[in-house]
Amino acid sequence: MGALNNGIPEKTVERLSEYRRTLLACHRQGITHIFSHVLAGIHGITAVQVRRDLMLIGFSSDTKKGYDVQILIDYISRILDSPQPMNIAVLGMGHLGQAITKYFNGKGLKLSITAAFDIDPAKVGTTIDGIPCYHMETFEQMVEELEISIVIVSSPTSVAPQLVLPIINAGIKGVLNFTSTPLNFPQGIVVENYDITTLLEKVAYFVKENDSSNS
Amino acid sequence: MGALNNGIPEKTVERLSEYRRTLLACHRQGITHIFSHVLAGIHGITAVQVRRDLMLIGFSSDTKKGYDVQILIDYISRILDSPQPMNIAVLGMGHLGQAITKYFNGKGLKLSITAAFDIDPAKVGTTIDGIPCYHMETFEQMVEELEISIVIVSSPTSVAPQLVLPIINAGIKGVLNFTSTPLNFPQGIVVENYDITTLLEKVAYFVKENDSSNS
Repeated sequence: MGALNNGIPEKTVERLSEYRRTLLACHRQGITHIFSHVLAGIHGITAVQVRRDLMLIGFSSDTKKGYDVQILIDYISRILDSPQPMNIAVLGMGHLGQAITKYFNGKGLKLSITAAFDIDPAKVGTTIDGIPCYHMETFEQMVEELEISIVIVSSPTSVAPQLVLPIINAGIKGVLNFTSTPLNFPQGIVVENYDITTLLEKVAYFVKENDSSNS
Repeated sequence: MGALNNGIPEKTVERLSEYRRTLLACHRQGITHIFSHVLAGIHGITAVQVRRDLMLIGFSSDTKKGYDVQILIDYISRILDSPQPMNIAVLGMGHLGQAITKYFNGKGLKLSITAAFDIDPAKVGTTIDGIPCYHMETFEQMVEELEISIVIVSSPTSVAPQLVLPIINAGIKGVLNFTSTPLNFPQGIVVENYDITTLLEKVAYFVKENDSSNS
């Protein structure tokens, strides 16, 4: 699988994560098989795209009933999931940090938010939604102790640049940044910058374009 | 501009939104000019990419001092922004909905969240962070009254599919969906499905891949 794995494009990885979530929902409803065009329909894409994605990870299915839901879940999980659990910390337990934690912890995923960091004395030392909140000063030490490999940055935007060095020094390997400041890290650290403002401005732009092409 | 505009790829639209935010921050700090490689560095991309994006929207700059920050802000704004303001409603004023509203309303953007909808009697009729919360039953009527064109779906995932019909019937033109259920709409309605779980699973996957290629 190694050689196949290395070449999986970002967008395919995203879709595999989405397919799996849909498959898990099917499984919970007792659905045992699903056709590629049904899976495609749920995700608003073509069946060709679904088949191409699954071909990329070496999955093929001959069954006349479509894909076996359980087998496909297991197959995608072997591709996406790490054999050892990955612990996640949230940096900045404001509204966004708390929303992300609440949203995530109800999901029963392999990935788990195990710690939060903040500098607010009202939060440090407390437990928010079952997640202990530590002082940012103890970040490097706690990352090692709790074996945290990924951080979600949900601090105020103005604070975000100050978090880069501690994140590097602590040996963090992946960063999901929700602030408005794009953060850059040395090679070897995976970073995804997702500003909600950008997402919304993108939707607004295409709404405007649709409007003007219709008028 | 029309012809140029229509062909702007999604990723370029995203980057234009990001460039503008950086340029606005520069402007606030009194910076009047910026080189393409500096703008590129902030966003972790190449100067070639920046110049290609700006060429796509027909912007060129000969100045030896780099791009004029104010002129470039105005130029990008003419591309991205709608001449008339676009009103946004949040569907589901739970933790995520509230976090998004708080995050957004401090930003002074052209886009503004003007209403929220929920079914929780504790929320309906109240004002949360300055945003009035209406009952979902009044959705179609209020969309017309308040001239809302975009909705952010931050309801519980299980509820999301029930929102599709009201959104279509109300004449909404753009949807930013943060739930775990991908939502499909007829052509003419722009939809972006952004599940935080997918973003995090993607980061985790590439961390795992980095690890295994280093070992």
